[in-house]
Amino acid sequence: MLKLDFHPAGRHFLQIPGPSPVPDRILRAMSLPTIDHRGPEFGVLGLKVLEGIRKIFKTTQPVVIYPASGTGAWEAALTNTLSPGDAVLMYETGHFATLWKKMAENLGLKPEFLGLPGTEGWRRGVQADRIEARLRADAGHTIKAVCVVHNETSTGVTSDIAAVRRAIDAAGHPALLLVDTISGLASADYRHDEWGVDVTVSGSQKGLMLPPGISFNAVSPKALEASKTAKLPRSFWGWGEIIEMNKQGYWPYTPSTNLLYGLAEAIDMILAEGLENVFARHQRLAGACRAAVTAWGLDIQCADPAVYSPVLTGVMMPEGIDADAVRKLIYEHFDMSLGTGLGKVKGRMFRIGHLGDCNDLTLMATLSGCEMGLRLAGVKLAGSGVVAAMDHLTRHAVKPALGMAA
Amino acid sequence: MLKLDFHPAGRHFLQIPGPSPVPDRILRAMSLPTIDHRGPEFGVLGLKVLEGIRKIFKTTQPVVIYPASGTGAWEAALTNTLSPGDAVLMYETGHFATLWKKMAENLGLKPEFLGLPGTEGWRRGVQADRIEARLRADAGHTIKAVCVVHNETSTGVTSDIAAVRRAIDAAGHPALLLVDTISGLASADYRHDEWGVDVTVSGSQKGLMLPPGISFNAVSPKALEASKTAKLPRSFWGWGEIIEMNKQGYWPYTPSTNLLYGLAEAIDMILAEGLENVFARHQRLAGACRAAVTAWGLDIQCADPAVYSPVLTGVMMPEGIDADAVRKLIYEHFDMSLGTGLGKVKGRMFRIGHLGDCNDLTLMATLSGCEMGLRLAGVKLAGSGVVAAMDHLTRHAVKPALGMAA
Amino acid sequence: MLKLDFHPAGRHFLQIPGPSPVPDRILRAMSLPTIDHRGPEFGVLGLKVLEGIRKIFKTTQPVVIYPASGTGAWEAALTNTLSPGDAVLMYETGHFATLWKKMAENLGLKPEFLGLPGTEGWRRGVQADRIEARLRADAGHTIKAVCVVHNETSTGVTSDIAAVRRAIDAAGHPALLLVDTISGLASADYRHDEWGVDVTVSGSQKGLMLPPGISFNAVSPKALEASKTAKLPRSFWGWGEIIEMNKQGYWPYTPSTNLLYGLAEAIDMILAEGLENVFARHQRLAGACRAAVTAWGLDIQCADPAVYSPVLTGVMMPEGIDADAVRKLIYEHFDMSLGTGLGKVKGRMFRIGHLGDCNDLTLMATLSGCEMGLRLAGVKLAGSGVVAAMDHLTRHAVKPALGMAA
Amino acid sequence: MLKLDFHPAGRHFLQIPGPSPVPDRILRAMSLPTIDHRGPEFGVLGLKVLEGIRKIFKTTQPVVIYPASGTGAWEAALTNTLSPGDAVLMYETGHFATLWKKMAENLGLKPEFLGLPGTEGWRRGVQADRIEARLRADAGHTIKAVCVVHNETSTGVTSDIAAVRRAIDAAGHPALLLVDTISGLASADYRHDEWGVDVTVSGSQKGLMLPPGISFNAVSPKALEASKTAKLPRSFWGWGEIIEMNKQGYWPYTPSTNLLYGLAEAIDMILAEGLENVFARHQRLAGACRAAVTAWGLDIQCADPAVYSPVLTGVMMPEGIDADAVRKLIYEHFDMSLGTGLGKVKGRMFRIGHLGDCNDLTLMATLSGCEMGLRLAGVKLAGSGVVAAMDHLTRHAVKPALGMAA
Repeated sequence: MLKLDFHPAGRHFLQIPGPSPVPDRILRAMSLPTIDHRGPEFGVLGLKVLEGIRKIFKTTQPVVIYPASGTGAWEAALTNTLSPGDAVLMYETGHFATLWKKMAENLGLKPEFLGLPGTEGWRRGVQADRIEARLRADAGHTIKAVCVVHNETSTGVTSDIAAVRRAIDAAGHPALLLVDTISGLASADYRHDEWGVDVTVSGSQKGLMLPPGISFNAVSPKALEASKTAKLPRSFWGWGEIIEMNKQGYWPYTPSTNLLYGLAEAIDMILAEGLENVFARHQRLAGACRAAVTAWGLDIQCADPAVYSPVLTGVMMPEGIDADAVRKLIYEHFDMSLGTGLGKVKGRMFRIGHLGDCNDLTLMATLSGCEMGLRLAGVKLAGSGVVAAMDHLTRHAVKPALGMAA
Repeated sequence: MLKLDFHPAGRHFLQIPGPSPVPDRILRAMSLPTIDHRGPEFGVLGLKVLEGIRKIFKTTQPVVIYPASGTGAWEAALTNTLSPGDAVLMYETGHFATLWKKMAENLGLKPEFLGLPGTEGWRRGVQADRIEARLRADAGHTIKAVCVVHNETSTGVTSDIAAVRRAIDAAGHPALLLVDTISGLASADYRHDEWGVDVTVSGSQKGLMLPPGISFNAVSPKALEASKTAKLPRSFWGWGEIIEMNKQGYWPYTPSTNLLYGLAEAIDMILAEGLENVFARHQRLAGACRAAVTAWGLDIQCADPAVYSPVLTGVMMPEGIDADAVRKLIYEHFDMSLGTGLGKVKGRMFRIGHLGDCNDLTLMATLSGCEMGLRLAGVKLAGSGVVAAMDHLTRHAVKPALGMAA
Repeated sequence: MLKLDFHPAGRHFLQIPGPSPVPDRILRAMSLPTIDHRGPEFGVLGLKVLEGIRKIFKTTQPVVIYPASGTGAWEAALTNTLSPGDAVLMYETGHFATLWKKMAENLGLKPEFLGLPGTEGWRRGVQADRIEARLRADAGHTIKAVCVVHNETSTGVTSDIAAVRRAIDAAGHPALLLVDTISGLASADYRHDEWGVDVTVSGSQKGLMLPPGISFNAVSPKALEASKTAKLPRSFWGWGEIIEMNKQGYWPYTPSTNLLYGLAEAIDMILAEGLENVFARHQRLAGACRAAVTAWGLDIQCADPAVYSPVLTGVMMPEGIDADAVRKLIYEHFDMSLGTGLGKVKGRMFRIGHLGDCNDLTLMATLSGCEMGLRLAGVKLAGSGVVAAMDHLTRHAVKPALGMAA
Repeated sequence: MLKLDFHPAGRHFLQIPGPSPVPDRILRAMSLPTIDHRGPEFGVLGLKVLEGIRKIFKTTQPVVIYPASGTGAWEAALTNTLSPGDAVLMYETGHFATLWKKMAENLGLKPEFLGLPGTEGWRRGVQADRIEARLRADAGHTIKAVCVVHNETSTGVTSDIAAVRRAIDAAGHPALLLVDTISGLASADYRHDEWGVDVTVSGSQKGLMLPPGISFNAVSPKALEASKTAKLPRSFWGWGEIIEMNKQGYWPYTPSTNLLYGLAEAIDMILAEGLENVFARHQRLAGACRAAVTAWGLDIQCADPAVYSPVLTGVMMPEGIDADAVRKLIYEHFDMSLGTGLGKVKGRMFRIGHLGDCNDLTLMATLSGCEMGLRLAGVKLAGSGVVAAMDHLTRHAVKPALGMAA
C-alpha cells in the first residue's frame, strides 16, 4: 500500500483552507459497509441527511446533494438556471471567482466580471454598490444571474451576501442570485433563506469536515422555476428528478453512499455543538490567528476588517520573500501543509486554514509552525505571533462542552 | 449515529450487482487522512492510480478519473465527443442502456435505439449484425457514435464488444464507439485498446470493489481528437485540462482523495490476484450460480449462453410469483439484498450479484439464502440448486493463493 | 505491513470455536482514541462496562475485568480463593478442563480429576452424581473447591451447572464452585447468581465477539470471603483493590482501554438483540449444524443430546480419515478455518464454531465449505448436510429484527 | 455508543506519560480481522513480532510477550525468578518503584527499599553507589535480585542502568538485575544485552504507541536458569512453555491477536524511523519542553540534568498552587490531558508527556496549552516558555524524513 500516512512521528498538520482534517468520527462513519441504494435502509439515511443539511444551509427549501466534488456543483447551479448565451454578472473576489467565470465561459454563457483593479478586489471582497449600479444600468434585464463567492478560499475575504441581496433588490432587478460558499458553509455565518439566495453552492471538504467528493445546491423556488425554462443541456446535474426522488430519501442514480454516512455524522457533530457555537469558535480562532500575523509585523491579505474570513487567513510576505519557499520549509521541518498563494498572488502570500475540526491547541501548533518556519526562512518578525495568539485566546477564554454522555 | 450497521448478528450479504461489498482492506485505505491535493504526496498517489487503472482497462491511453459517480461518466463520454443534435446509434440491451439513451436525449442528442422486440433484446444482448446493417445504411455518416453497454447490470448479459468493433469496421463507418462497462470492469474480460473502443465508461462500485463516488473515461486518440471540435457545452467533464494536469499526478479541481486511496488499494489487490485470475474466478462462480438456477428449474434471464454474464445472474420467476415479494422475504429472513427487476422486467425476476470481493463460500451463502427464500415463498423448485452449485465448484476446484507474506 | 488480510477475494470464514469473528461495529469502537485511564471520561466508560457485563453474567455481584486473556482469569479464580496444597475437585470434560487441572498443579494445588474412562467423559460432560458421591465421601471437607467447565470448547459439550450446584448442596459440602464458561458466555444460557456459582471465569473472544485480551471473574460473596484468607501469592490478580476502585469506574493499574471500548459496544449489541434471543439464535444454528452432520452420516462428538453445545459442534471422522488433513484442504480451497481436534481426539475430529456474530447464511457458507471439503477429501457422505440444514432453518424460520433507526 | 470520542472540535491532546496517543496506522492495523491463533497465518505474525521486538530491546535473547498489561509483566519478572521469602533490593525512584515494591510484598518476597530521604530520591533517580555498598554488605548473598526502574513515569527521571550493572559487578554479587522500562522502551536509549540486564519489563502503551494490553519480559540466560529453581507459584506467567512455543511463532494460550497486529505495525514504524533517530527525537523534544519550564520560572521535578527523562517532564508548582486544579483547568479549556502528581508529590506537580507519536507541533500545542492554562490559573510566569521552546527547536532544526514511497 502507498505509505501516504507515513510521517516519522506525530500527525501531519493539514492547515490548508480545505480539504480540512477529517475527524476520526467521520472516518469511522465512512467505513460502515456500503448498502443497497435501493433498499429500505438507504431511505432512512437519505431522509436524515437531506433534513439535516437544510439546517446547515438555514433553508427550508430543497438541498440537492451531488455525488461529485464542489466544482460540479458550480456547473449544476449554472446549467439548471441558465440558457446558452445568457449574460451573468460575476464579481472578482479572487482565484475561485475567476475559475467560476471561466467555467461560465466554457458553458457558453456571457459572464461580465466586475471588480476592483489589480489585487484590490482580492483584498476587499464584493462591493455591493457596484453590483447595484451595474444592475440599474441593465434596464433591459439581459443579466440573468448575479454570481458571487461568499468566502473566497484564495484570499480569506468573506463578502457580505445580505448586502448583495439588498443591492439587487434596490436595483429592482430580476436576476437570480447564485452564491458559492464552498469554503464558508458550517464555518462562517450563512443564511440561504434569510438572504434570499437562489442557488447556494457548497462542498463537503471544508466546514463539513468530510473528504472531498460530494457537493450541494440549495435551491430557491425562483431558481426551481427558472430551471423549467433554462436551456443549457443537463442530465447528471438536473435538479428535477433528484428533488422528486429525494422525497423518499433516494436518488435517481447511485449516490456516494459512504460519504453520505460521513455527512450524517458531520451533521450530528455540528448540530450537537450548535451552529452558532461553531461560528463563534471559528471567529475566535481567526481572531487569534490575525493577532499572530499582526504581531509578526506581516500584512493580512484581507484589507477590510469588516470582511475578515473566520475560515482562513492570508499572510502576505515581505518583499523578496517567496511564500512558497517558506511553505516548503515549513512542510519539510514541521510536517504541516499551508495553502499556497493562487493566481495573481502566487508566491506573495500563504494561507492558514483554521476551519472545521480545529481547536485552540491545533491553532497554536499551526502558528508555532509558522513562526518557527518564518524565522528559519529568515523573515524578520516584529514579535512573537504565538504569544499574541495566546493572549487573544486567554482573554477570550471558553470552556468547550466536553462530551462524556453514556 | 445512524444504526445502519445494526444487524442482530452476522454480516449483511450485499448480493446486488453493485455496489458490491467493499473489502476491509479498501475501507482501511479510505480512512487514511485526507491530504493536500496540491501537495507533494498527492502527486505520488495520483501517478500511481493513473498508471494502475490503465492496466485494468487494458489501455495505454489516458483514463480520466472523475470525482463523480458512474452516471456522470456517461455524460462525460457524450459531452466530450458530440455536438448538439448529433445522431447516435444506441442499442437496447436493458434498463441501463435505456437510461443512457434518455440521457442522450436530455443533452440534446438524437439517439436512435436499435434492439429486438419486447424483452428479447434484454435476453440476448447486442446483435452486432444489426449495428453493421444500420451503419451501412448511413451512407452520409450522420451517425457520430455507436453506444453500447458491455455488461448490462439489469439483465446479466455481457455483449460482445469485439464483434461491435468488427461490425463498425465492416461497414466502413467513422462513428466513434462508446462503451459502458460500469459493471463489467475488473470482473468480465475487457480490452479497451485491443477492441478499438473510443470511450470506455466505468465506475468504482462494482468490480473495483470501492464505494460509489468515482468514475472513469478511457479515451482513445480518435475520441480525444473528436473532443476538440465537439460542441456540447462542458467544463467539469472536460477531458483536456484533466489529462494535461494528470501528467504530474494532479487534477484541475479537487479530486475525491479518499476514494483514490481506496482505488490504489483495489488496484493492488486486483493486480496481485492477476486480472486473468479475477476473470476466471468470476466465470467459475457465475457457472456455479447458473447451475443452481437450472437445478431449481427456473429460467436464467440471459437466453444466450454465449453472453452469460460473469458478474450477475438474472433469475426469472414462475408465473404468478412476484419477484420483489421473494426478495423482501429473503431480506427479512436472511439479511441478504438481491437486485430487483428493473424497467420492463420489474417483478418478473431478481438478480444475484457474484462480483468483486466474492468467493466460493460467499456464493454458497447467497445461493442458500435464495433457495431457502424461494421455498418459504412457496416457489416450487425442481431440485436443490445449492447441491448443484457445490457440484460445480468441486468439479472445478481451485486453491486460491492465500497470502501470508511478512 | 503484514499482508495478513490478504485473501484473493472475499472474506476469510473464521469458524473455529473462538476467537470468533469480530463485527465491524466492535472494530470501529476499538479504534476510538486511547484516553487517560485516570481522567474523567474513563470513569464513565468503566462504570458502563462494569454494569453491563453483570447483566451478561446474570449477576448482581462484582465482575472483575482483567487486562489479560482468558487463561489469566483461570489463574485469578484459583489464586484468589485457595491456599498452597489445597485439594480441588476438577472434572475431565475435555482438553481445556485438563489444562485447567495442569494449571492447578503448577500453582501448588492438589487437584483430583474425576471423569469417565477414555474419551467417554469428553462426549458426555459433567456427571453431577459422581461429584456428589465424591463430596459425600469427603467428610473432612478437605476439598476446597469444585472446578468445572461449562462449555467445553474442545468437544462441544455444555455441562449442566445447575446440576453441579444441586450435587454440592445435596452433599452438604462447603466447597466453592468455580466454573469456566470462557466459550459459553453470551452464547449458551448462563446464570451466575441463580446457579450459585462462586467464581465464573470467562473471556472476550467468544460470545462477546471481541478479540482476545480481556477476561473476567464473576465473584460471589462467599468467594470474596474466601479470598480474605486464601494464601496463594497474588498481586496482579488480586480482587480486593480492583473491586474497590471499580466502584468509581477505575482500575488500580492500566486497563485495556481499547478492548473496553469494544466491550461497551458488544454489550450494547447483545442487550439490544436480547440475551434470550442470542441464546435462541445459537440453539437454532447449532440445530441446523447437527442436522447437517447427521445427514452426512458422521458422528457428533457430543454423545448426549441433553448437553449438545449451542456454540460449536465436534464432527467425528470415519476411520482412516485424518481430520486435520480435511481441515487443511478446506482451508486451502475455501478460505475457512475450522477447529482442530485437541488432546485425546487429535486427528479424529474437527470442530465447527457457530458462535457470536453468526447468522443463517454464515452457517450455510460454513456447512457448504465443510461438505465440499469432505467430498474433495474423499469422505463418503450419506447425503447432503447442507440440504438438511436448510430444511432445519426453514422449518424454524425467524425474521431477525433488522435495525434501521435513525 | 459511548460518546467518548466527542470533543466539540479538534482532537484531544493526550499528553500524559502514557498511554500515549495511538497513531492511526496502528489503529488501522489493529482492525485487521482476528485470525485463528493456531492457523498457519498466525505463525508468520508471531515470528515477525518476536524478531522485531528483540531489536527494540537490543537483545538476542528471548522476549516474552504477555497478553496482559504492564503490571502483569512486573509480576512475571518476580515469579519466574524468585522463591517465597527471597530478599530483593529495590530502589525508591518514585511512585512506580513503590508500587513494584508493594507487589513484591504481596507475593511473599522480602523487599528492602533503598533511597534518599523525603522526595530527594524522586528527583535524582538511582544512586548506584548505594546499591554497590548494600550488596557489598550482603556477604551471604541473601539478596537474590536488584530491582530498579529505568524511566520513572511518576517523576521524569531516567536512571543509569549501566551504572547499576557496574555496581553489582563491582560488589561481585550474584543477584539478578531486574529493570522496569515500561515507559522508557522505544523512547529512551535502552540496551538489554549490553547492560547485562536479567529481566527487562516493559509495556505497550508508551514508546511503542499501542493501546495498553500487552507487556514484555526480556530474559537473560541467567534469569532463565534461575526460573528453573524459583519456587513462587506461577502458570500464566511461566516463561518456559511460552519460549518453547514461540520458536514456531505460537503461544500456549490465546495471545492478544489484534494488539500483536498493532505491535507489528509499531515495530515497522520504529525501525523505519531508526531506533537512534527515535531516541534523538525524544531528546530534542524533551530539551524544548525543559526550556519552556525554565522560561516559565518553574522547577523541573528532576533535579539532576544527567538523568532528565526524554519521555516526560515533571513540572513543580509554586507554593500555594494546586497542580491538579491547573490540570483540570487545562483539561476543560484546552481539551488536553496532563499527568497528575502521584504519591508523595500529589498536588505539587504535573507531568507533561512528550513520548511516542509526538512531533514538534504536537509539543508546541502542548506547551501552549500549559502556558495558557498556567496564566488562567493565576500562576506567575517569568516569561514565555513557548517562545523558549521555539528557540530550542529552531536552534536544533531537523528535517524528518517524510514518507512518500509508492
